[in-house]
Amino acid sequence: MTQKAISFSPAEYRRRLMLTRAAMAERDLDAIFIEDPSNMAWLTGYDGWSFYVHQGLIVTHNTDPVWWGRNMDANGARRTAWIGEDVIRPYGDEYVQSTSRHPMQHLAALLKEMGFETARIGVEMENYYFSAKAYTTLLAELPQAEIVDATALVNWQRAVKSDEELTFMHRAARIAEKMVLGAIDRSDVGVKKNELVADIYHDALTGADGHWGDYPAIVPMCPSGADASAAHLTWNGAELRSGECTFFELAGVYRRYHTPLSRTVFLGTPPEDMKRAEAALVEGLEAGIDAARAGNVAGDIARALAGPLDRAGIERGARCGYSIGLSYPPDWGERTISLRDEDETELLPGMTFHFMPGLWTPEWGLEITEPVLITDRGPAKPFCNLPRQLFVKADRNSIMAPLDHSDPILAASLAAQELSKENPI
Amino acid sequence: MTQKAISFSPAEYRRRLMLTRAAMAERDLDAIFIEDPSNMAWLTGYDGWSFYVHQGLIVTHNTDPVWWGRNMDANGARRTAWIGEDVIRPYGDEYVQSTSRHPMQHLAALLKEMGFETARIGVEMENYYFSAKAYTTLLAELPQAEIVDATALVNWQRAVKSDEELTFMHRAARIAEKMVLGAIDRSDVGVKKNELVADIYHDALTGADGHWGDYPAIVPMCPSGADASAAHLTWNGAELRSGECTFFELAGVYRRYHTPLSRTVFLGTPPEDMKRAEAALVEGLEAGIDAARAGNVAGDIARALAGPLDRAGIERGARCGYSIGLSYPPDWGERTISLRDEDETELLPGMTFHFMPGLWTPEWGLEITEPVLITDRGPAKPFCNLPRQLFVKADRNSIMAPLDHSDPILAASLAAQELSKENPI
Repeated sequence: MTQKAISFSPAEYRRRLMLTRAAMAERDLDAIFIEDPSNMAWLTGYDGWSFYVHQGLIVTHNTDPVWWGRNMDANGARRTAWIGEDVIRPYGDEYVQSTSRHPMQHLAALLKEMGFETARIGVEMENYYFSAKAYTTLLAELPQAEIVDATALVNWQRAVKSDEELTFMHRAARIAEKMVLGAIDRSDVGVKKNELVADIYHDALTGADGHWGDYPAIVPMCPSGADASAAHLTWNGAELRSGECTFFELAGVYRRYHTPLSRTVFLGTPPEDMKRAEAALVEGLEAGIDAARAGNVAGDIARALAGPLDRAGIERGARCGYSIGLSYPPDWGERTISLRDEDETELLPGMTFHFMPGLWTPEWGLEITEPVLITDRGPAKPFCNLPRQLFVKADRNSIMAPLDHSDPILAASLAAQELSKENPI
Repeated sequence: MTQKAISFSPAEYRRRLMLTRAAMAERDLDAIFIEDPSNMAWLTGYDGWSFYVHQGLIVTHNTDPVWWGRNMDANGARRTAWIGEDVIRPYGDEYVQSTSRHPMQHLAALLKEMGFETARIGVEMENYYFSAKAYTTLLAELPQAEIVDATALVNWQRAVKSDEELTFMHRAARIAEKMVLGAIDRSDVGVKKNELVADIYHDALTGADGHWGDYPAIVPMCPSGADASAAHLTWNGAELRSGECTFFELAGVYRRYHTPLSRTVFLGTPPEDMKRAEAALVEGLEAGIDAARAGNVAGDIARALAGPLDRAGIERGARCGYSIGLSYPPDWGERTISLRDEDETELLPGMTFHFMPGLWTPEWGLEITEPVLITDRGPAKPFCNLPRQLFVKADRNSIMAPLDHSDPILAASLAAQELSKENPI
C-alpha cells in the first residue's frame, strides 16, 4: 500500500465535515446520503471516474463519512480519501447495471446495519447521480425511515472557499489564461476546429507554472459563426472561416478545481452590431464586477450588468453566472447561487463565481466572461488577467490591410505572466 | 439559417423511430419521455453539451419526436436534429437550477397540451439525467397520468448496429489504435502522466484517416503501479517509473460513436505473476471471441473467458464487457447487455461489445481488451488490430541489457496501417 494522495490538510477536511454536520443538525437529519461526486470529493478527497455507477457517502454525526461504492473502486477510495478502512463499504459487481438488482438494495441494508432503519435521512433529490429508481428503491427498502430532500445541502457549504481552495483556483486560472490565449493565437482561416480543440486540451493538461492540468467538467466549447448562436454545441471537423467569430468557453482545472474563462475571436471585420454589443458587454462586465462586493447580493451583479445592456437594446433573458469551485461532469458550476435578478443570496468574502454574460443571437455568439473572487472590501477580484474585448484577427484571405492583431494578445500574454509572478502560488 | 448537420440518412432515423414505437406499443405506452442524451441523439441527431440541465424528447406514435429543453439550446436542436421547428419546445431560463421552480412543471404542462394528461407515459427511472426530483415533480403535476418505468427501452433498440453506424465505429477504431499505439510508444521512465494524457487527447481529437475525433464519454484511464489496482483513477502529474505497469483504457470516438480499446505497458521486467496472468488473459480473450457468435448468449463469452482464468487461479468477480456504440458522459457503455454469467441475451449479428476483462490486483492492473462485432457466422470480428499482449519496454535506467521492445509496437503499427488500407471507410 503506497502513500495516500490527499489534496488538503486534515484541518480543512475537519472544517468541511463540521459545516456539513451543522447544516444537517439544523435540518434535524440523522444522516445524509450523497451521490454528487463533487460533494464526495470535497468531504473526503475521493477522486475517480467511477460515478457512472451508483456510489456515495453516508455522512453521520458520529462516524467518519462512509464510502459506499462498487467493489472495484474501493481501492480508489483507499488511495484518494482520508477516511479509514473501516468505513469503506463496497458492493459486488452483480449490482452493476443489472436488470434484477439495484445497488440501493445493498445501501439500504448498510443503512439498517448502521442503525438508520427508522432515521431521518437526507438524499440529493435533484442530482445527476441519484436516479429516480435509486429513490424509489430506497423508499421501498427502508419503509420506516423518513427520506427527505437534502439537495445541495453540501453544495451550499462549498460556496465560501478556504485559502487552500483559492490556491487551487489561482493555479487553475493560470491554466485557463494559457488555454484561451493559445486558442486565440492559433485561430485562423482554414484551421480545423477539432485540431484547435486538440491543442486546447494539450494546453489544459500540460498545465501552467509547473502545475499539472486536470480534465474540465465540460469539454471545450468553441462554436463558430451561426453555430455560435447555439450555446452548447461541441466541435466538428470544419474549418474556421473568414467573416465569422468563434467563442472559446474553457476552464483551467487544477485537482478538480475549475476557473472558467471565455473570450471570442473574430476573423476579419466584425459587423457593427457585434461591436456595439461588445462595448455594452464590456461596460456591463465592469459594472457587474464593481457590484460584486461583500454585503451586496447575487442579484446586484445581474442588475449592474443589465444597465449597459438595456441601454444598448440587448435583452439576455438568461442568468449571467454561477458559483464555481470543485466539479465533476457534466457541469462545472456548483448549482447553488445563480447570478440573476431574483437571487438574493448575500455575497460573502471567499465566494467565487463565473460571471458569464454570454450573448447569443441567431447570427453569432459573443462570450467575454470573468471568474471572480468576492473580497473583504471593494469590487470582486478577477482570477484572470486578459483584456476584456473581442479579439479581432485580420483575415489573410481578405483584401483588407492586415490589422495589427498581435498586440493585444501579446500584451495580454505578458500581463498574465506578470500576474503569475506576483502570485507565485 | 445554415444547413443542418445531420449524421445519418432519413431512412436510418425512420428505422430507429419505428423500432422505438414498436417497443412502446408492446408495452402499451402512449408516449415516452427520454432524458438520456444518447437516446436523444440516436433518435434525432441532437448533439450538444446541454445535458447538465433538464432536457429530453417526447416520443409519441403520431408526431415527430418533440425536443424539449432550455431556451438557449433550442438553436442547437435546430442545427443538429432532423425534426421540424413545430416540435422544438424550449423552456425559459427561470427554470434552470432554480430553488423555487422545476423544469418538470413546464414539461408537465406541455404533456397536457399534447393530450397526455391521462396517458400511460414511460420515463427512464434509472438514468443519470432523470433525477429523483424530476420524477416526483412529474408525478405531482400529472396526477391522472400513469407514469411507468421505461428504463433503457430506447437503449435496447440500439443494440444491433446498422451499416451506417458500423462505418462510424470503424472510423473510431482507427482513432483508438492510433491513441493506444501512441500512448505505448511515448511511455517511458520519467514521462509525466498528465503530459502523456495531453498527447492522448491530441491523438484522439486530431483523428485518423481524415476523420475528426470527438470527445470520449470517459476521460483516458491510465493509472500506473499500485494506482492501477484502482480501476477508475484518473491521471496526475507523477512520472512513469521503472518497474511499474500502466494500463491505457481509451476510446476512439467518431461523431459520438465509441470504439474502446485497452492495452498495458510495463517499464522494465514484469513480475512472474503478471506474465502468468497475461498468458491466461490472452487465452481467455481468444476463447471469448470464439464464443462470441450469433446464436450464443452474452454469458457464453464470460464463461469462455473464465476457463483459462480459472485454470490460472484468477477470479475476476466483475462483468467482462458491455454493449457499445453511441454515448455521452459519464459512461461509454450502452447499459443494456453485460458480458457476465447470468446475462442470457442472445447474440445477434450487428451487436457490438467492449470485451473488457480487466485484471486488478492489489499490486497492479492489467488491461488487454477488444471491441468486437458479432457477425453472421463464425467468431466475433475485432474492430481493432493490435497484438494482444502486455507491452514491455526496457527501462533505460536499469542495468539490464535493453530489450528489443520496438518490434512488437512497430509490427502493430504496420498491421494497423495495413488494416486501415483494407477497410478504407
